Amino acid sequence: MSQELSYLEANRARFLQDLLALVRIPSVSTVPARAADVRRAAEMAKAYMEQAGLEHVQVIATSGHPVVVADWLHAAGAPTLLLYGHLDVQPADPESEWTSAPFAPEQRDGRLYGRGTADTKANVLSGIWACEAYLQTSGRLPVNVRILLECEEEVGSPSLAAFVRDHRSRLAADAVVNLDAGQQADDQPSLTTSYRGLIGFHLEVRTAAVDAHSGGLGGLIANPAMALAHILAGLQDPSGRVLVEGFYDQVRPLTKAQAAQLEAMTPLAKRLADGVGAKGLWGDPEFSPIARNWLRPTLEVNGVGGGFQGAGSKTVIPATAFAKITCRLVADQDPEAVLDLVKRHIERSAPAHVQVSFSETSGQATPYRLPDGHPVAEAAGRVLERLYGRPPILVGGGGSVPATAILQAELGIDSIAFGFAQPDERIHAADEFFRLSDLERGRMAVAMLLAEVGAKRTEGAQSAN
Amino acid sequence: MSQELSYLEANRARFLQDLLALVRIPSVSTVPARAADVRRAAEMAKAYMEQAGLEHVQVIATSGHPVVVADWLHAAGAPTLLLYGHLDVQPADPESEWTSAPFAPEQRDGRLYGRGTADTKANVLSGIWACEAYLQTSGRLPVNVRILLECEEEVGSPSLAAFVRDHRSRLAADAVVNLDAGQQADDQPSLTTSYRGLIGFHLEVRTAAVDAHSGGLGGLIANPAMALAHILAGLQDPSGRVLVEGFYDQVRPLTKAQAAQLEAMTPLAKRLADGVGAKGLWGDPEFSPIARNWLRPTLEVNGVGGGFQGAGSKTVIPATAFAKITCRLVADQDPEAVLDLVKRHIERSAPAHVQVSFSETSGQATPYRLPDGHPVAEAAGRVLERLYGRPPILVGGGGSVPATAILQAELGIDSIAFGFAQPDERIHAADEFFRLSDLERGRMAVAMLLAEVGAKRTEGAQSAN
Repeated sequence: MSQELSYLEANRARFLQDLLALVRIPSVSTVPARAADVRRAAEMAKAYMEQAGLEHVQVIATSGHPVVVADWLHAAGAPTLLLYGHLDVQPADPESEWTSAPFAPEQRDGRLYGRGTADTKANVLSGIWACEAYLQTSGRLPVNVRILLECEEEVGSPSLAAFVRDHRSRLAADAVVNLDAGQQADDQPSLTTSYRGLIGFHLEVRTAAVDAHSGGLGGLIANPAMALAHILAGLQDPSGRVLVEGFYDQVRPLTKAQAAQLEAMTPLAKRLADGVGAKGLWGDPEFSPIARNWLRPTLEVNGVGGGFQGAGSKTVIPATAFAKITCRLVADQDPEAVLDLVKRHIERSAPAHVQVSFSETSGQATPYRLPDGHPVAEAAGRVLERLYGRPPILVGGGGSVPATAILQAELGIDSIAFGFAQPDERIHAADEFFRLSDLERGRMAVAMLLAEVGAKRTEGAQSAN
Repeated sequence: MSQELSYLEANRARFLQDLLALVRIPSVSTVPARAADVRRAAEMAKAYMEQAGLEHVQVIATSGHPVVVADWLHAAGAPTLLLYGHLDVQPADPESEWTSAPFAPEQRDGRLYGRGTADTKANVLSGIWACEAYLQTSGRLPVNVRILLECEEEVGSPSLAAFVRDHRSRLAADAVVNLDAGQQADDQPSLTTSYRGLIGFHLEVRTAAVDAHSGGLGGLIANPAMALAHILAGLQDPSGRVLVEGFYDQVRPLTKAQAAQLEAMTPLAKRLADGVGAKGLWGDPEFSPIARNWLRPTLEVNGVGGGFQGAGSKTVIPATAFAKITCRLVADQDPEAVLDLVKRHIERSAPAHVQVSFSETSGQATPYRLPDGHPVAEAAGRVLERLYGRPPILVGGGGSVPATAILQAELGIDSIAFGFAQPDERIHAADEFFRLSDLERGRMAVAMLLAEVGAKRTEGAQSAN
């Protein structure tokens, strides 16, 4: 595949420009006003895929943001891989915390800074570029390829399950290559074999119809920000253990071997915590940090607000306060059931004279685990070993990729995580970046994976003969 | 004083226009960007006082916002009253909750809506108009008058004590007439004989240098919004009792008679709570509602924030969260001592891996109580009885007027509350209004009070001869 690698090398300047153009689009899926930008990102990806030589490229509307699909299915007898990725990004606020503007990508010290660089526009384009390298040189891919790019991953993929159900024949494949993924470190490849699930909601606490003067009414009526504090404090004890009744009931227990193996990885947890400047590791003391991040559920307050927000002081008793809450879930927790447990707990704990109400803010994700010994995972492992000079370690994913569980449930196929973001790249936070060296590594890796899966399956087919 | 009352009647249209012009100025003292507007309000008040015929009218700079002073001191042998008021207003946000724009005053149903109408621009101008009615008719006031209008009342009057110390001779008087005051109801006059003190600060809780991905870091590091919830919940129990060690130690106990009298006023508390649409009365069950509002300290969260604030969801562990906290204090609490108690309590209760920091948001107010039987209070009572047809009830003030304690400490004189705001007029909240009928009542009342104090003192002086 030397001509493909030469092609990738020869086009590196254009590839970078294409990525910059895509990062400049603020495709923030959670903000309704950004819907047109999300659509622009989908159309741009479509243009890139057409330029690559992929076929049947199409932007398809859903009840939410659109989906982009494409395929190339002329590798008779070879397996079919479904490349999955997403084009939407997290919000960039507070923008004041960014060194350079989030949607004006900037190269500094071998890194490309901008919202969506690491999560996951660079990874998505690496997949397209790998296909392009084959299709624009030999004119053929070593495997059949389908591509599925959604635009709602950052809001929990609410339209994806219905879309997959409605387009089963366009998505049929032997395995998913999930490009929304990463490696453990610059010199340490990894294969992520599980993702946590996700639920989330917006909680409003109301104690009055209008704000009140804290002198005139203070001592007479309840304060919703204080009531919210009592509600939140009732969800998790100060050590980090979630207090919601039944929250942990469905969680698969760790084996002793797992617990020991994960405890040994505490230095990794320390590096992750150092990466965001945290003062130390924190969480339920019954479990080691990496066990908590990979195999235990969490409850997080993603945002809290209410009352006076400006500089200085305003002596007001607000009428309302809110919290945005999400939980990461693990096997075998059922998202709907846990969501219900948390809401019921809040309703029971709400003080008198306080009205709580819930609204949904995002879709849900079911936890996902890759079965042991998947052939595409083994192929990915060999590619990573060749690229990094050492075999990948198997890791858990603290985050959620709803598509993994959805594609498993709807199409019966597993997802192999194969992306090149790194844990220190500040995804979802200010100053998100992606290493420029991983741009090259990523597209080369996907090209090698396509060849490896094509070769392996052919061998397998032959030996079975 | 019939010619003065005729003058007030003849000029009512202009008075209203003058008030509208003053309300149009967003003199929000807590917002640094509004400093020029605050200054404009001071200059406008100066122009009104010059037009009234007051002398030595001057806008004087302080280390914060300016102060406006004036006087008329030609009533030889008569007492001197210091009319006190303020020209600054509370912030108007959230502006979306206003029916008409806060700084575009609008008349509806006999009410003038706008930020600062009731608190306290109408009251201040009533005082100036009363002087004008005398000076532009007979050319004389029945008493000596000084005027002191500050522009920092809504931020706790941080510059006032130093100003008063530096200008003692310009402010020397027998008593203060505090125009920043109100009446209990449209048909129920009242004399406010106490004000609560005030302390406040901004609390920041930080757990990391930057925001983190709730998947990548969830389970590894502390969440500052949750830590803040634990800290806030540790400040007050769910029934409303403040848990800060020593918080109540200096509070003057209620007598049994006081407790019974205040308990009988619970219907008033219900009306106040209904006025803001609260679901019910709430607070420390050991005390009746009005006792809690007048004679017990409070701790309120005026604002809370941190993390994602937009629509939808962002799966982030924020780096910081904040709360804006104020306490209303009562005799004999010392503001500095209580502020220290609250901060130390927070520091002690802050979880590990959480960094708390404090910044000041406002000045402080010392609680104030008017002594029984003050001659100017008695004169004010006679004026109110004539205007309302019934004698005033003595009430406590849940709010704070820092000037009352400052003027007592620096000049040794007491303040008689004499203003015409009503408890339902939504001061500090959206849709603040002032009754147009109280515009007339207010200026007439101040004119009558000046006459009453002048006449009374003259009698007193004669009988002493």
